[in-house]
Parts: sequence; structure tokens; C-alpha cells
Amino acid sequence: MQLRNRQWKIAGRPAGRDVTEADFARDEVPARAPEEGEVLVRVDLLAFEPAMKGWMENIGGYVARTEIGDVMRGSGVGTVVESRAPGFVPGMQVTGPMGWQDYATVAAGELRPVSNPERPSDDLGVLGIVGLTAYCGFKAIGQPFPGDTVMITGAAGAVGSIVGQIARIGGCRVIGVAGGPDKCRMLVDDYGLDAAIDYRADDFAAQVAAQAPNGIDVVWDNVGGTILNTLLGNLAMNARVVICGGISRSKTGGMPVGPENYFNLVFKRATMRGFILNDHEAMFDEARRRMSQWLADGRLVAREDIQHGFDNAPRTLMRLFSGANTGKQLLRFEEDR
Amino acid sequence: MQLRNRQWKIAGRPAGRDVTEADFARDEVPARAPEEGEVLVRVDLLAFEPAMKGWMENIGGYVARTEIGDVMRGSGVGTVVESRAPGFVPGMQVTGPMGWQDYATVAAGELRPVSNPERPSDDLGVLGIVGLTAYCGFKAIGQPFPGDTVMITGAAGAVGSIVGQIARIGGCRVIGVAGGPDKCRMLVDDYGLDAAIDYRADDFAAQVAAQAPNGIDVVWDNVGGTILNTLLGNLAMNARVVICGGISRSKTGGMPVGPENYFNLVFKRATMRGFILNDHEAMFDEARRRMSQWLADGRLVAREDIQHGFDNAPRTLMRLFSGANTGKQLLRFEEDR
Repeated sequence: MQLRNRQWKIAGRPAGRDVTEADFARDEVPARAPEEGEVLVRVDLLAFEPAMKGWMENIGGYVARTEIGDVMRGSGVGTVVESRAPGFVPGMQVTGPMGWQDYATVAAGELRPVSNPERPSDDLGVLGIVGLTAYCGFKAIGQPFPGDTVMITGAAGAVGSIVGQIARIGGCRVIGVAGGPDKCRMLVDDYGLDAAIDYRADDFAAQVAAQAPNGIDVVWDNVGGTILNTLLGNLAMNARVVICGGISRSKTGGMPVGPENYFNLVFKRATMRGFILNDHEAMFDEARRRMSQWLADGRLVAREDIQHGFDNAPRTLMRLFSGANTGKQLLRFEEDR
Repeated sequence: MQLRNRQWKIAGRPAGRDVTEADFARDEVPARAPEEGEVLVRVDLLAFEPAMKGWMENIGGYVARTEIGDVMRGSGVGTVVESRAPGFVPGMQVTGPMGWQDYATVAAGELRPVSNPERPSDDLGVLGIVGLTAYCGFKAIGQPFPGDTVMITGAAGAVGSIVGQIARIGGCRVIGVAGGPDKCRMLVDDYGLDAAIDYRADDFAAQVAAQAPNGIDVVWDNVGGTILNTLLGNLAMNARVVICGGISRSKTGGMPVGPENYFNLVFKRATMRGFILNDHEAMFDEARRRMSQWLADGRLVAREDIQHGFDNAPRTLMRLFSGANTGKQLLRFEEDR
């Protein structure tokens, strides 16, 4: 049986500009049969992250380099078609690195069965990189304490929405920053945050100050740019500023605009710190266990934005940078391939 | 006896521009006789700090507000003229807040005898705010470890030169950044640093990279602006970036330019943190004791830049922002008043 394998390959480096469809090229090859220790997986769902733009630019150096012509990387959920590794049998739902293609041939060590077969997408969101980033970064770097004022940028996004809910569970006063009234309503109504601020509002800076009269104890920043700068101007004493992402840089040059209010770190004895998820592996089991329980209890809600069809992969990535998505951005492939 | 008391008063707010002589106005009043619990001191030496510009602008909020018409604040060393407090007798050399004036009437609780009567100026430098800032900030925030690469901006200044020497004593590889060949020579020859980089050099960024092939473990920043930005682009994994000052802001607007490389904090899991000396009082005794020993052993050298005459007070402050001083900036008043 020769399986037709459609692929999206990297065709451009979007440094200093928006990602476009022209940064990807379609190809079609036969699926590669698994060798000893490998598993052939039909890709069902793909996950999309803002960091993908950085991977395409080879900035940061914390993941292996990409080359023009590589199949675009991405985590996914799929169904085992053929296995030459113990523990994996056809029909099993698995998650791991798959790439933007119909069929992935993956080393067994990089795959694992989905955590919850009834909600396999959880492994691409709340129980995957997204949820672990939120949990581990907020615990290790944010160091929240009950009563803290926590302000989150990109609060309606996949990571931000989980940070906000964990902060709420932890007894913090939580204010989410997002774009537009629909997202702001969702932050309060669906995620139970105390307040939401639309960063597009003319009086954004005044709203930030009004919502944090005693200053912000924890900033969780996914955005950078002028929004981060405004928050840095409203820190509480001993504040922690967690740098998780800088999605505003997609609109500017190679990096987000530098925040001139960084100097407020001195007056407020505050800490600004970045992190990479891999450094916190020792916390992963705890994070998955507690978040699974919160999901089961209904205290944690994981929203997903599911697009459809292989053809839409580049456009689905672009949704992250235009702010079109709410919650984890996913793409479901056609059932009949 | 009616003592003539010349004073320099605040006449301008230099926010967003250089300090000028016109920001100060001369006055002359009779010295105020001490009340119960107060001491009348003849001011002999005044200390100058870059932070004074911020005090005149009322930014930061970590010191009491200044008003136009206030006598300009400053620490000094002086001689007791008249005392109405136990423990202080005429002729004793004391240090404390004095202000830019011939005679200060000070609450006894704010004064203490100088640490070393043979070098009374040590209390305005290495054993005063300057040395304590270097010691406490470098220990608590910089957290150096033997073998670390430490890079210091404003390294020929009062605080920077002490940080550099402590780093050297602690077994670090120490690179100082300063302006001009004379200062750079001094860093290596007088303070024993491993290397110096002239920030005015065309290939400044290349020199930074060359001097830190494995990245910078501790950045001590007194400057901000593009120099800080370059250093942020050369961090080692888990680097600590200590924000102590931002003297480059005297050339720009209210704050130093924002460092766009702040996002490298993520890739390098690095921490950028500010501090205010007052928070580290518990470390002051240790700091004074150890630095006094290092001074006595000749392992620590405290350079001073002494100007002369009451008339020169505003111009002496301005030296800090033009980079004219090397080491602690002081002003000695006339002997015969």
C-alpha cells in the first residue's frame, strides 16, 4: 500500500515581517514505511504556537535549526497506521512531533498514547506544551501569592487563559489584557477573571492604573511592545515580570520594541525573567496531575479554536498573529484521506 | 555669633535634559542654631551621585519629594560646631545628610562619627552609599560565582569600580566598559580587571562578543541605552542582569532607551532585576567590615575625584553626566569661611 503524503515545507524566513502563505510550499511524497523502532502515524490534529515563527527564523537557538525545504514542524495527535515498536498498535491514538503532513514516521520514543482518549486534543493544549508552559512558568517564575494582583497579556490565548485560571484558583486578583470586546467578555464570563482590559482602548494606560491601584505583583507577558511597557510602569514593590512571549514582534522587527520602563525595575525592586519550558521537566508530572483534576472538577476550562483541512495549515498559523484565535489554535485534517 | 550660611537651592527640574547651572540658585541665610537633639555642623566635603538628577525630578518615589526652593540634598562629611545632643562635641568629624550649604543643622540620629578619621571621605564612598550599593547589589542580585564572566558598565565610576574589584577578588573574569582610553587603562592597571572595552569604539559590539565567548554571566549596568542592549545580546545561560543605574537617560528622555534585546531573557533563562539599597540594611555591617579589611590589605582601591569650592557645586554634579569623573565625585569646601 502506497500512502499519498501531502506536506507543507518551509519556503521563507519571516524575520521582521508577518508570516504569509508564501512562506510555505506544498509537496506530495509517498509516506515512508517505518523502520525498526518507528511508528507510522496518520496525522489527525495539529497544534500551532506563536514560537513557530521563531523556529522558521532560527532565532533563540533553543530548538534545532530549520532549513528551507524542511517539512514544517508541529506537534500533533494521530492514529497509528503501522508499528514496528512495542507498545504501539494500529488504531491507537498517539501524540508527539508530527509535522505539517498527512503521515508522520516517528521514533517510538517521541510518541506517547493520548492522556484522555475522549479529549485527545488536551495533549496539544492544557496537558501539553501550552498548559505546562502556563503551570511551570507561573509557579517557578511568577511565584504568585494569594491576594496578588496578576495582569496577563494575550490573556485570551492558549497559555494566557490557563495562567489566568490558575491565578484565580490561587486566590489572586486577575486582570486579563486582550484585543476587542468579545475576548474581554470571554475572560470574565468563561474564565472567571476579575476584570479584562481591551488593549485597543484609547485609555488603556488609565485602565491599567485603575485596575491595579496598589501596583501589579505579577505580570505575565505574551506580547511585549508598548503593552508590556505600560504594565512595567505600574509594578508593585518586588513584582515579578514573567517574559513568556513577544507576539507583538510579528508586527515589528526581529524583536519586540524595547520597554523603556524597564528602569522601573530599580524603583520597584522588581524582577523580569524569561524561561524555557525544557528546564522545568521535573514539574511536568505534578502539572499534568493537578490540571487534569481541575479540568475534571470544572475549575479549569480549556478552549480550542479548531480550523479544518490540510490546505489551511499556513492560514491557521497566521491566525495567531492577527489575533483571530481564542484559546488553543488547532487544525483538524480531513477524515477521508 | 551669627554664622553666614551660603546655600544652593533647587531652581529647576531637569527631566528629559541635562542638568545645568541654571537648575540651582544661590542664597545666603544665617545658620540656624541647633535645638535640643540637634547638631550644627560645618560642611567640609560633599558627595555627588547620579541619582541626584532623579531626586530633582521626583521620579521613582523612593526618596521624599523635593520642592523648588529646597536646599539641594547631599551627604557630606563635616565638623561639629555646636551640639545639643549627647555624644557629639565640637571639633568631631561626622557624616550624614548635610545638603549643599556651609552649615547644616542636623538631628543627631542622622549623624555618626566618621569611620576612619584619617580618611573621612571613605564614608562618602567605599564605606558609604557607593560601596554599600556595590557590595549589597552584587552579592544579593548579581550572585557571582568563581569563573563567571562579569561585565560592568560605567566601570570607572564610583560604584562600578568597586563592583569590578569585588568581582576580581571573587575569582570572576571581569571586563569593564568605560569611555575613552584613559579610563580603560585605569580599569586594568589600577583596578586589576581582566579587560576593558571603550564603549565609544566602532567595533564595541564585536569586542563585547569577543571578550565573552561563552556569554556574560553577570551584567552590572549603570548606563542603560544601547550599551545595555548590546550586553543583553551576549548573555550566558541563567545570566543575572543587575540594573543599578541608567546614566544614559541624562542624554535622552525621562528614561533610558528600552533595550529591545530584553527578549533574550527568554532564550537564556536570564533574570534582570533592580534594587534599592535601603532594602539590604541587614548586610551593611558585613559589607563595611569586609571592605574595610580589603582596603587595609590593599586589595580594594577607592579612587576619588575631588573638586574645590562652594561655588563649584552645580558644576561638580554635571561632571557625573559628562563622564568627567573617575571614581567617587567629591567637592571640598574652602577651609577659611
